[in-house]
Amino acid sequence: MSRAPKVIHLSPDDTEHAFYEALEAGDLDALMALWADDEHSVCVHPGGPRLIGHDAIRDSWKEVFANGRLQIRPADIRSVDGIMIAVHNLVQQVVISGHQEAQDLIHILATNVYIKGPTGWKMMMHHASHAHQADETSHMSPEPLPTLH
Amino acid sequence: MSRAPKVIHLSPDDTEHAFYEALEAGDLDALMALWADDEHSVCVHPGGPRLIGHDAIRDSWKEVFANGRLQIRPADIRSVDGIMIAVHNLVQQVVISGHQEAQDLIHILATNVYIKGPTGWKMMMHHASHAHQADETSHMSPEPLPTLH
Repeated sequence: MSRAPKVIHLSPDDTEHAFYEALEAGDLDALMALWADDEHSVCVHPGGPRLIGHDAIRDSWKEVFANGRLQIRPADIRSVDGIMIAVHNLVQQVVISGHQEAQDLIHILATNVYIKGPTGWKMMMHHASHAHQADETSHMSPEPLPTLH
Repeated sequence: MSRAPKVIHLSPDDTEHAFYEALEAGDLDALMALWADDEHSVCVHPGGPRLIGHDAIRDSWKEVFANGRLQIRPADIRSVDGIMIAVHNLVQQVVISGHQEAQDLIHILATNVYIKGPTGWKMMMHHASHAHQADETSHMSPEPLPTLH
C-alpha cells in the first residue's frame, strides 16, 4: 500500500487546505496523515455517531470514500488560532453527484480543531453537522440526499 | 434588569460547569456573562443556523429558555486544553419534559471552545448537533421531540 509522503504543515490553514484537498482526491492515506495519531481524537460525521481514535476515524472515511466522488469546498471560516491549538468553524459546500447526472449542493457546518506537534499542525477534532435549511444556497435536484459527508 | 455578578472562571472546566448550571437555571444573564463579548463568537444549536456574535447568540438562548425548563447534563468529555484556548467535545444528556408528564432523554453532541482573557475563561464557540440514534440511551415517551436544545 502506498503511503502519503511526510509533509509538515506549518499552519492550521495549511493543514486545513490539505484536508479538503485529500477529501476531494479521495486519498485516505493523505487524509489520515493529517490527523493526529491520537487515541483521543474525535470525529463526528453529519448525523453520525461520535468516533474516537485514529483507527475508528480512518474506517469511517474509508466508508465515505467508498460511496463515491466528493466535491467539497470550505467557506466562511471563523478562526480562533492560538500558539498550540487552533479552531476553525466553517461551512462545507458539498456537491453530491446523484443518479441521472443530477447534482445537489448541500451545506455542512464543521468545527475543525488543530494541534501543533513536532511534525506540524494536525487535526485533532472534526465535528460536522447538517446546516439549517436557511443556510443552504441551492438544490439542483428534487432527489433525496444520500448521507455522504 | 438584574445582571449576573462578575465571576472570574479560572479554568475551562469552571466555565463549562457554570455554562450548564446557567442552562439548567434558565438564567440568560448568567449564561451570556460566560460568553466572550466578541462579534466573531459562534453558536450552532442542533439543526439550527450558524449564529455569529454575542447579540444573535443571546437572542437564540432567550428563545430556547422561552420553550420551557431544560434539564441538561454534560457527559463523556474529551478535552484539548491549552494555555489560551481549550476545546471540549462532549455528550449533552438532555431531559425534555413533554406533555402528560412524559419525558424524553435525548443526546446532543457539542464542541465547546473556550478562550482565556483578562476576565478569565470565556466561551467562544458552541457547536451542537443531534447525536446518532445509536448514541441515545432511552426514550421514555413515544411523543415527537420538540426542537429544544
